[in-house]
Amino acid sequence: MQIRAAVLERFGEPLEVQELELAEPRAGEVLVRLEACGVCHTDLFAASGADPSGYSPTVLGHEGGGVVEAVGPDVRDLGVGDHVVTLFSPQCRECVHCLDPRTNLCLAIREQQGLGFLPDGTTRLSRDGEPIRHFMGCSTFAEYTVMPEIALARVSTEAPLDRACLFACGLSTGLGAAMNTARVAAGSTCVVFGATDVLVGGPDAVERVLELVGPMGADYTFEATGNVAVMRQAVEAARMGWGLATMCGVAGKGEVLEVVPRFLITGRRVAGSSFGGVKGRDQVPQFVDRWLAGEIDVEPFVSHRLTLDEVNRGFELMEAQDGIRSVISFG
Amino acid sequence: MQIRAAVLERFGEPLEVQELELAEPRAGEVLVRLEACGVCHTDLFAASGADPSGYSPTVLGHEGGGVVEAVGPDVRDLGVGDHVVTLFSPQCRECVHCLDPRTNLCLAIREQQGLGFLPDGTTRLSRDGEPIRHFMGCSTFAEYTVMPEIALARVSTEAPLDRACLFACGLSTGLGAAMNTARVAAGSTCVVFGATDVLVGGPDAVERVLELVGPMGADYTFEATGNVAVMRQAVEAARMGWGLATMCGVAGKGEVLEVVPRFLITGRRVAGSSFGGVKGRDQVPQFVDRWLAGEIDVEPFVSHRLTLDEVNRGFELMEAQDGIRSVISFG
Repeated sequence: MQIRAAVLERFGEPLEVQELELAEPRAGEVLVRLEACGVCHTDLFAASGADPSGYSPTVLGHEGGGVVEAVGPDVRDLGVGDHVVTLFSPQCRECVHCLDPRTNLCLAIREQQGLGFLPDGTTRLSRDGEPIRHFMGCSTFAEYTVMPEIALARVSTEAPLDRACLFACGLSTGLGAAMNTARVAAGSTCVVFGATDVLVGGPDAVERVLELVGPMGADYTFEATGNVAVMRQAVEAARMGWGLATMCGVAGKGEVLEVVPRFLITGRRVAGSSFGGVKGRDQVPQFVDRWLAGEIDVEPFVSHRLTLDEVNRGFELMEAQDGIRSVISFG
Repeated sequence: MQIRAAVLERFGEPLEVQELELAEPRAGEVLVRLEACGVCHTDLFAASGADPSGYSPTVLGHEGGGVVEAVGPDVRDLGVGDHVVTLFSPQCRECVHCLDPRTNLCLAIREQQGLGFLPDGTTRLSRDGEPIRHFMGCSTFAEYTVMPEIALARVSTEAPLDRACLFACGLSTGLGAAMNTARVAAGSTCVVFGATDVLVGGPDAVERVLELVGPMGADYTFEATGNVAVMRQAVEAARMGWGLATMCGVAGKGEVLEVVPRFLITGRRVAGSSFGGVKGRDQVPQFVDRWLAGEIDVEPFVSHRLTLDEVNRGFELMEAQDGIRSVISFG
């Protein structure tokens, strides 16, 4: 079928909305009609060329919400009409990591996904016969996409997809980093770097945090920028004795986090969190249900609404630090 | 009283065994006659001048076992004849850290101890009227020392002090790092850097560990060298998904541990462990009892026996990687 999609042609240049061909879903795969897709910093990061594992051309986007239009052979748990949230971090429920409660890093399709292919090593996207690679296994800056069943979370049909899509990355990553990775205890002091740029930022961030939470530092700190200098601040602002610094951002090629060992020996810990440690097919539907039950407030996370043709505007708003999240609505 | 003690006069030069004056214990302090003292890498580290907080002249030694000879006013829990193990990491049982199960970093006397003084800001050691500073609150390369009661663990009188002294640092740090900090689960793969130099070492250490424990890495790694390059190896040899790298060594001035953030985001954690997270007055006597009950094997950790006059030989053996531990016996 013919679809319209935002293509990254060359690093550092605007995305181009083009007509592409999308092939039918193969075994274990699902055709999804996107209703909405968030514009995430990781898309901008890939578009910039800073991502160590980046490539082009590709269709960006990974924070999608949509409806199942067709299923390929051997699809077991999804059917036409199901509402789904896309998972760049899949859950096969069979690999050693999926069977272990300590990690969400499913190993089933990791290698092919990282190279831009679906699990069988091919693409469903093409342009005039030339294969176009997928991005994060999702490529949801598009009217339709084909994804493996294990990379789709079925969510309540009562959840509006123009907000449910945010659980595909941003919301789950943040909620999961606190709930799964750090396991924040009630009453703890917490610091989030990035998210609160308005309050705290710059080279004196550690001092300013210590002024706020006390000279010992915060029980939990979270880094969500991918900037290694900020990661270092997150370590140094964590509390002596038991402070945990959780890194959620993705750093650039060749960058290293410098940790002064004294901060470790005096009781701080450092952890990383990918997709918030969320096992997506299990936990994303639970998050969505908690939103529908009024326990999670999603509205404030949508600051701008765009069309697919305005996708580059989403990047511009992000670079201008204007708003928290742009969401593209399709059709 | 007059005592013989090994004095660090100048960084990088051999210790000098000299006659010093030792004043009587003041309030909350205890006079200990040393029976034995282990020679630890931290003593060598301080003697070399690499310790960021080092000073001289001072009496080194911090892995002591001895007998209480006298107590000052207001000493509540120790009496003459008690057998004690020295604690460079004290336990006041009153500060916010002592009352919290998550950390052993007692805050009571931290600052004065770091500067080389007893809690009241003075020294009991002197030479011809010139004050000589204490080391790690212990200064146990000496026939006698005066220490705060909160820095002494009373141990069973059935435990030979020439081995019990090893619980003052090395044994408790190692046991505690595994039991308190990492909380190693039965059946896990573990890698210790340093301790197993004979098996694994050098720039290809990570590859060799992965050959041994599998390509995903070890469930737990422990760094015990203070070398930041080895610390990095310990991080990179920890398992994707849930590997925990615990840093036990003390790094040199200005050195930083370089962590490639990808190792964190893919599920590894980094922790530090000071004195194995051991709350000394509580847990050291328990360790000693477990040794006496046959649960911990201490004999293999004593490789050489020395007199106080041979203290520099202990450093030479360490630098030659000859044996695991030298123990000085007094009198």
